[in-house]
Amino acid sequence: MANLKIGVVGCGRIGKLHINNLINSVPGVEVAAVADPMLDKSGAREWLAERGITTVSTDFMDVINNPEVEVVFVCSSTDTHCQVSMEAVKAGKHVFCEKPIDYDIDKIKALLALVEEKGVKFQVGFNRRFDHNHKAVADAVKDGTVGDPHIVIVSSRDPEPPPASYVAVSGGIFYDMMIHDFDMVRYVTGSEAVEISAVGSCLVNPNLQEESGIPDVDTAVVTMKMANGAIAVINNSRQAVYGYDQRVEVFGSKGMASDANDLRNTATVMTVDGAVSQKPLWFFLERYNQAFINQVLSFVDAIQNDKPTAVGAVDGLRPVLMAKAATESCQNGGAWVKVEA
Amino acid sequence: MANLKIGVVGCGRIGKLHINNLINSVPGVEVAAVADPMLDKSGAREWLAERGITTVSTDFMDVINNPEVEVVFVCSSTDTHCQVSMEAVKAGKHVFCEKPIDYDIDKIKALLALVEEKGVKFQVGFNRRFDHNHKAVADAVKDGTVGDPHIVIVSSRDPEPPPASYVAVSGGIFYDMMIHDFDMVRYVTGSEAVEISAVGSCLVNPNLQEESGIPDVDTAVVTMKMANGAIAVINNSRQAVYGYDQRVEVFGSKGMASDANDLRNTATVMTVDGAVSQKPLWFFLERYNQAFINQVLSFVDAIQNDKPTAVGAVDGLRPVLMAKAATESCQNGGAWVKVEA
Amino acid sequence: MANLKIGVVGCGRIGKLHINNLINSVPGVEVAAVADPMLDKSGAREWLAERGITTVSTDFMDVINNPEVEVVFVCSSTDTHCQVSMEAVKAGKHVFCEKPIDYDIDKIKALLALVEEKGVKFQVGFNRRFDHNHKAVADAVKDGTVGDPHIVIVSSRDPEPPPASYVAVSGGIFYDMMIHDFDMVRYVTGSEAVEISAVGSCLVNPNLQEESGIPDVDTAVVTMKMANGAIAVINNSRQAVYGYDQRVEVFGSKGMASDANDLRNTATVMTVDGAVSQKPLWFFLERYNQAFINQVLSFVDAIQNDKPTAVGAVDGLRPVLMAKAATESCQNGGAWVKVEA
Amino acid sequence: MANLKIGVVGCGRIGKLHINNLINSVPGVEVAAVADPMLDKSGAREWLAERGITTVSTDFMDVINNPEVEVVFVCSSTDTHCQVSMEAVKAGKHVFCEKPIDYDIDKIKALLALVEEKGVKFQVGFNRRFDHNHKAVADAVKDGTVGDPHIVIVSSRDPEPPPASYVAVSGGIFYDMMIHDFDMVRYVTGSEAVEISAVGSCLVNPNLQEESGIPDVDTAVVTMKMANGAIAVINNSRQAVYGYDQRVEVFGSKGMASDANDLRNTATVMTVDGAVSQKPLWFFLERYNQAFINQVLSFVDAIQNDKPTAVGAVDGLRPVLMAKAATESCQNGGAWVKVEA
Repeated sequence: MANLKIGVVGCGRIGKLHINNLINSVPGVEVAAVADPMLDKSGAREWLAERGITTVSTDFMDVINNPEVEVVFVCSSTDTHCQVSMEAVKAGKHVFCEKPIDYDIDKIKALLALVEEKGVKFQVGFNRRFDHNHKAVADAVKDGTVGDPHIVIVSSRDPEPPPASYVAVSGGIFYDMMIHDFDMVRYVTGSEAVEISAVGSCLVNPNLQEESGIPDVDTAVVTMKMANGAIAVINNSRQAVYGYDQRVEVFGSKGMASDANDLRNTATVMTVDGAVSQKPLWFFLERYNQAFINQVLSFVDAIQNDKPTAVGAVDGLRPVLMAKAATESCQNGGAWVKVEA
Repeated sequence: MANLKIGVVGCGRIGKLHINNLINSVPGVEVAAVADPMLDKSGAREWLAERGITTVSTDFMDVINNPEVEVVFVCSSTDTHCQVSMEAVKAGKHVFCEKPIDYDIDKIKALLALVEEKGVKFQVGFNRRFDHNHKAVADAVKDGTVGDPHIVIVSSRDPEPPPASYVAVSGGIFYDMMIHDFDMVRYVTGSEAVEISAVGSCLVNPNLQEESGIPDVDTAVVTMKMANGAIAVINNSRQAVYGYDQRVEVFGSKGMASDANDLRNTATVMTVDGAVSQKPLWFFLERYNQAFINQVLSFVDAIQNDKPTAVGAVDGLRPVLMAKAATESCQNGGAWVKVEA
Repeated sequence: MANLKIGVVGCGRIGKLHINNLINSVPGVEVAAVADPMLDKSGAREWLAERGITTVSTDFMDVINNPEVEVVFVCSSTDTHCQVSMEAVKAGKHVFCEKPIDYDIDKIKALLALVEEKGVKFQVGFNRRFDHNHKAVADAVKDGTVGDPHIVIVSSRDPEPPPASYVAVSGGIFYDMMIHDFDMVRYVTGSEAVEISAVGSCLVNPNLQEESGIPDVDTAVVTMKMANGAIAVINNSRQAVYGYDQRVEVFGSKGMASDANDLRNTATVMTVDGAVSQKPLWFFLERYNQAFINQVLSFVDAIQNDKPTAVGAVDGLRPVLMAKAATESCQNGGAWVKVEA
Repeated sequence: MANLKIGVVGCGRIGKLHINNLINSVPGVEVAAVADPMLDKSGAREWLAERGITTVSTDFMDVINNPEVEVVFVCSSTDTHCQVSMEAVKAGKHVFCEKPIDYDIDKIKALLALVEEKGVKFQVGFNRRFDHNHKAVADAVKDGTVGDPHIVIVSSRDPEPPPASYVAVSGGIFYDMMIHDFDMVRYVTGSEAVEISAVGSCLVNPNLQEESGIPDVDTAVVTMKMANGAIAVINNSRQAVYGYDQRVEVFGSKGMASDANDLRNTATVMTVDGAVSQKPLWFFLERYNQAFINQVLSFVDAIQNDKPTAVGAVDGLRPVLMAKAATESCQNGGAWVKVEA
């Protein structure tokens, strides 16, 4: 089978991550073209040349119009995800789009419709579904081992807060951080959130709202009534000083599946002062490194063997609807907000 | 020092538990008198005689008026806790009262005032504060190791549901079960709940409301805004098929303290099918056995050395106010309800 | 059924432990008589009187000849275990004898023969067989889950060394400490040691041999070729500064069963410095408290229901033979020594 | 800094592993030349071409004589390790040599002397020293946290036995498998074995000796008296059906450091049947994947910054001496054998 030719739009941190993975860890593909508006200012041109990638451009349409390119990876800035994806789908290319697709729900719906119409493969970058730990929890639900899900608890805490300037444009904690956890709840329950209540505070940085200029919080708890009757809780903090805390628990009629953090190592040192073991891995590039690879392997498999993608366009839409509801709820003291269908 | 003379009112399951502990595991005390209205019908008279306790009566006032008795343990039926306690305090006796004191907040407040006036020692039976695991979590908060508490998660699940007939008179899950967890949140945070939202469903027994005749639930999640800014979440289920699930986690500015269930044993058997380890201890008599003893040791110490009791009358009041708010919220779809001060 | 009448010979630390357990935790028995040569000097008479035990004597034959007494607990000093047991068996009493029966193998064999002849129940106090953790490991071997045992590792370390004066009369580490582990290896494998190599050093107390006057060691590793082909290793240290370390691992053709220490509590505190959890319970009275009770429950059951005892007289003999071989090996630089049959 | 030019001798399984790691995971190096006698028969030429490596030969001297090549990786068949290394060192190249260097002790000593004389960097492929878990244990010894080592236990078990034909030429379990554990004991104690006793049986494959034609075993326990007074025990099995079991424990005067296996994931599923968690990773390529990379990073760092290599030529010699002693002991029923100095 000939290699799948991949064009990458965006060569920043996440674009480089994907390019390295495509080269080193994904068999049967090659990176045929890359576009980035900052190609020369950022040093991306050299970085790409070192990897033998010379079909480069500052205009993403060059990637999309490149007849060799069969698949487009959308790794550009968040505000362009939807537009680039639309163009790629229009051109009949398969698309892997980093999350979130967009914050504008109508735009996402239009993209969904176009993907449907064009019959191309479309996958959103919810990489955590491909994490070894969370996947094992989800599998224990799917295969019936835990029975009907009753209570879901997702604990998701970053090791350190982003700058207020990032928050100012990110849409806030529910859009830039909890969006992954909204997807996780859908993933492990196989059900949709019907109604959401969100409460939060600025406990990490009391000046966050002032500094960011938006009514955001850095510590948040969200409760959800799921369509299947389960109750789901997500808790987020911008700062877990001990590291990246990523845990999922599903309690059901037949049992409970839960995971723990990956640790730096398994060593324990026991002295008169107690037993000391390791902290979690520090952050997402370290913790979800393999998950980033696994999601692309899955996407490539979907294309090569004409299967549905594991995380489709609708999976890009629902978490945004949940973030929207949570944001509204949080700004209203936790009032219950229905999630748009 | 002469033995402290203890009178016990109520010789059912919990009364017997305390009497056995007082005899076997609490030095410096003796059970001087016991009252139970069912003394003869229940076989309690013989049970007591086997333990050398022959000053017995069917009238609790005989215990209270017994001039030898210095301390009264109130282990009678829930609806008499407050009345018996009032009489005992009036008579100048120290009182250990099983939880809950009452569901009528005015009655509890009247008792509080009387305890204050009489200057006797009063302790409520929130035994979980004396559990080795939960105490270690609370200590890590108190000594500052975890910093300011930001997020608290209490998972508390029973191994099997009580009969609907029990629920019919218990006041429901927030009064008979989560009351312990409300106390736990206060204990580990050192702060009070300001506002509460409760959601729940009948997932264990879909016919619960019909069978019990009250609008109760068997699966519940409660979120609380605490006075110190922390957000606390409690989840309860009437049925964790794998056993009594009792875990507490406090996440704060400097770290996290959490505990795990006590297991039947520490053995792991690893085969081609994976590693199998044990389930949690089955239920509260097994799990909190030592905590029941520890709380009495602490109470006796408070009396003998004239210290404040570890769980005072106000600690009996606040969880009832929280249960009241949670019940109201749950019956209103999770609407936020302020906790009475 | 009438209560089983028990006579206890020896009212020191271990005698008191058994008496308390017989009173509080073993149904269907009563302590009918106690003998201790130091009855008055040690305060034992008062201690017994507080528990309602007034049939007391300084002469152990008074207990044995007491016609009420059906069972004798031998808790006297080690050098009298065998003699007291012999007299009790001669008198037709069932006997529970603390370990070791004796260091003189002929004496033990004579006792074995007498027990056989008289048809009484005899149990040796290898309480660790009744520990929840080790029992679970043994059960996983017995029920075939781990297949044929190939490698056994017993780690057994005390929290602090006994005084050299104790070692001087105890017979050394293989007799007073590892004797339990020799029994454990037999228990979990269901097989006998054929040949033993023991190496050791004085790493805890370099002056141990000088101070104790015997060629003993405080750190020892023993390797055993078992009759069933398995290889067993025991490691002992007189001083694990972090507490009482008691672990057993059986590796076999179908898997591995292993246990971990019981900890003070299950709490973990995670900060920037790592995750700190608890140390093991401190020493044997705390760690094996329930095992002491369980072994007596088992013994009483054997008497009441005429079953074989779980730890018979031969189980008292074999570990002594193993200790003898290990001592000889250790004093010969680890040379292999055959265990007498 | 210019890239370090690396020549690789041997392009079988382990050679390919190193080549992939050098390309993908080691910055500052490039693979300049590769030799393998089976270049064309094995498909290695194509495999290398796909990676852009075209300076290839069937004669390893072409790599050594290539003036561009600064470093030689010796990944050829075991019997050629020493010869290829000698030639490379003679030519003034730095050498990374897969373990074992040789089984002939004089040859290793000659190589040691030559390395010394030529002043090149030489590292042996004891990759486990670079494993995150074992390194953390070793670090806790080195930094004094566990105090003086008293007892060391290395459990090292393969998931499935190699064919008897492999054993026939490997030199047996002490040379081909336990060699890593001999190095581990040296690594974590910082001390040398003085005397060794080895016992073993054919419990996995009772016909092993017949099939392999050598007096080998598949289950082995080795005890070592270390120069620093510690006692070390290694246990090996050719078949742990649950996976690759790799654990190290160092018990010392101030505490204990131990590690656990890396598991497939951290998920636990708890049902009425108990709590099921994961098995260890399957085998060394999976388990020590990162350790293979780390050792090369360390080697490259030693060259680039002129530091001593972390695992020098003497570290290649000592484990072979230990394997020799263990083999002799095992064939003599566990008799103690002094390790040559």
